[in-house]
Amino acid sequence: MAEPLKSVLIANRGEIALRVIRACKELGIRSILAHSEADADSLPAKLADQAVCLGPAQAKWSYRDSTAVIRAAQAFKADAIHPGYGFLSENPDFAALCEAEGVGFVGPSSTIIRSMGDKIEAKKIARRAGVPTVPGSDGAVSEFSEALAIAKEVGYPLLIKAAAGGGGRGMRVVEREETLEKDLNEIMSEAEVAFGDPSVYIERYLTDIRHIEIQVISDGVTTLHLGERDCTAQRRNQKLVEESPSPVLDEELRHGLNEAAVALCKEVGYVNAGTVEFVLDNTERKYYFIEMNTRIQVEHPVSEMVTGIDLIKAQLLIAGGQPLDIRQEDIAINGHAIECRINAENPDQGFAPSPGTITNFRAPGGFGIRMDTHIETGYAIPPYYDSMVGKLICWGRDRDEAITRSLRALEEMVVEGVTTTASFQAEILNSEQFRSGDFNTGFVAKFMSTR
Amino acid sequence: MAEPLKSVLIANRGEIALRVIRACKELGIRSILAHSEADADSLPAKLADQAVCLGPAQAKWSYRDSTAVIRAAQAFKADAIHPGYGFLSENPDFAALCEAEGVGFVGPSSTIIRSMGDKIEAKKIARRAGVPTVPGSDGAVSEFSEALAIAKEVGYPLLIKAAAGGGGRGMRVVEREETLEKDLNEIMSEAEVAFGDPSVYIERYLTDIRHIEIQVISDGVTTLHLGERDCTAQRRNQKLVEESPSPVLDEELRHGLNEAAVALCKEVGYVNAGTVEFVLDNTERKYYFIEMNTRIQVEHPVSEMVTGIDLIKAQLLIAGGQPLDIRQEDIAINGHAIECRINAENPDQGFAPSPGTITNFRAPGGFGIRMDTHIETGYAIPPYYDSMVGKLICWGRDRDEAITRSLRALEEMVVEGVTTTASFQAEILNSEQFRSGDFNTGFVAKFMSTR
Repeated sequence: MAEPLKSVLIANRGEIALRVIRACKELGIRSILAHSEADADSLPAKLADQAVCLGPAQAKWSYRDSTAVIRAAQAFKADAIHPGYGFLSENPDFAALCEAEGVGFVGPSSTIIRSMGDKIEAKKIARRAGVPTVPGSDGAVSEFSEALAIAKEVGYPLLIKAAAGGGGRGMRVVEREETLEKDLNEIMSEAEVAFGDPSVYIERYLTDIRHIEIQVISDGVTTLHLGERDCTAQRRNQKLVEESPSPVLDEELRHGLNEAAVALCKEVGYVNAGTVEFVLDNTERKYYFIEMNTRIQVEHPVSEMVTGIDLIKAQLLIAGGQPLDIRQEDIAINGHAIECRINAENPDQGFAPSPGTITNFRAPGGFGIRMDTHIETGYAIPPYYDSMVGKLICWGRDRDEAITRSLRALEEMVVEGVTTTASFQAEILNSEQFRSGDFNTGFVAKFMSTR
Repeated sequence: MAEPLKSVLIANRGEIALRVIRACKELGIRSILAHSEADADSLPAKLADQAVCLGPAQAKWSYRDSTAVIRAAQAFKADAIHPGYGFLSENPDFAALCEAEGVGFVGPSSTIIRSMGDKIEAKKIARRAGVPTVPGSDGAVSEFSEALAIAKEVGYPLLIKAAAGGGGRGMRVVEREETLEKDLNEIMSEAEVAFGDPSVYIERYLTDIRHIEIQVISDGVTTLHLGERDCTAQRRNQKLVEESPSPVLDEELRHGLNEAAVALCKEVGYVNAGTVEFVLDNTERKYYFIEMNTRIQVEHPVSEMVTGIDLIKAQLLIAGGQPLDIRQEDIAINGHAIECRINAENPDQGFAPSPGTITNFRAPGGFGIRMDTHIETGYAIPPYYDSMVGKLICWGRDRDEAITRSLRALEEMVVEGVTTTASFQAEILNSEQFRSGDFNTGFVAKFMSTR
């Protein structure tokens, strides 16, 4: 049995770095922020117990530099590394390096990260666990004849996906048989170039879908589900608004999704926090596993606010070998929470990044409001990373109250000097369709076209 | 049946003014801030839909000026006035003026305010409702012979209290019979001067007590209790730390307190939010009604965070004639919340006010943290009002987590330019005795003497 962590190196930046620092402080864990040169004066650097510079601003020389990170952890005698999300968080080689060097990794084993990071392998595991997957190829496809046979079975439209892709990259929809060969060859070449791996898989392209994910947490013995997050409001496969509970699940679907997520985790002996992602076919009212994220997610606070469970603290406790002190029957979904990702982007110019210095910032406040952010008045947004400047998470007794409170908070928030997506988020939340709860992943695009 | 409020004039300042503005915004109610000259540039003045200056900084010319407030409400066509706490909030004459002028008052009727504001009358009502009161005089006492007879019945130490007093003023403890006559005469003279009313009452002086209050809310038909707040951590009768639930109540006592509070409200036909205050005799495990506050209290967020119910929104809905949409069986106490009042005072100099300009302010953030405050970087604390600059309310799954989170947040909070009580609050929360939950109203004084 591992010892409770006494020190953690945080190999990340921005709001998630701050989030982990806060959890460390509440657990009495010494926090060491490993940051790039660009983030030396950031709020996380000020609030961490210690800070160490990994290297230049570009992530490959700092946040993605496995060697630099592990050396920093060793130099500062950190018991473990928290990778946050992005960067090294789902890099199996980095997790393996931690294992080899005897440094703790706040997440599952490299073996699990590797299996789940391979979409085809993950799909196989899901099937073994009895979890439904989108109809399609059982494994990697590289021959046209094979693709043609699968296509006939599954029907059009089809989706070709690079096995090593993610975040909306390396995907193509094939509408009819005539273009299948050409599309297949092109996406394979692209995948070879982008990910160093040409293998793809083919599946039914579902058009009327919602994106629903289940938050899980496991100490290796007990595996708990913390309910779903509905992330259907997306723009170009990027989540904009996430909420819990989903406005469309009935108790039967909810139960099925929760049990499926837990079954998948048990199949691989999953440890730590994770998210099992599903698509829900709105028309058929059926769900299919799509992938598992073996890390904490941006939208985790939504689940925290409805369950009361601090997921980062749970991660740190589990990484220190402490068994979960929560039982499934103690977890209840209380009220409704909505997260809006606030990006420094201009919604009126195609969401172009809006870098610059924040000349005035005032976070919204009051009952039910949580703003997780690293920005302050005077903060200059570095151009090297993503454009998210914060997350606004609002809780209400019911969905209506959560929406109303979110709108109030979005209005109250002041960010001057750069343009943000806050007003666009307000438009989305205030739209009749969002309020109705009845929409699919095409909603935001359609909303934008009629705006 | 009244119409839902469309506009509300807020006759208050600071964090409570901001709190009411936020609730108004969530209900789509136009908010008009009525402020003094000293508060013209305050955050509430910036965030309210409209603002009107009542008069000079001194409260008697602005926040306590009934005529100025009612005229402002009429000029701005406000449907109702929210008095916040302090100032005009428990002034029956002001409530009567609102009634006479046909302006809504967010609170109970002037009759109820008057009855409950008279300690002797309130005690009589409690007895009628079957609610236990501290053994003592049934009514006002002004003769020595009468006092002596009561004293013999009740036993020493005794407490003499001005009927019109409050907030710790106009009270004296009498330890033995020898000083009774002198003490009685003195406190009556003082009461005459301070409150224009010499009447006093006499009661048993309990020494090992906790201060426990029940939050109630009623629409005139349905009266609900929202559980207790334990406000035992006081310095000179001023609350420092409030929490819910109380660490010392068992289910029987809790049930008794809740039912007693509701019985009292029903006895007077109470409407709107209110707090029924009790002392709990630690030794005897018995509770006694002491007074009712017929307004929203400073510490109301503690109850909001464990019940999920927005008390200010409830107040506004009730004042607009809307029946409560909550049933008692839907109210559950979820987790634990603790509030620390942050005052601009110097704990190392006898809590002397520390006025000045806040040169740097950073609110703590993250999961479970709520900071209700009107301060900002650059804010100059006006010398005319109380010294509270904000309230930090932290929620946790249990009391330990709420304490740990509070300590983390107190450490994270930055207030530069003035001295605050934050570090003192942290000492209190971190003390073994506070953590144990086993203390009485003498705890803070004792803690300070051994500091």
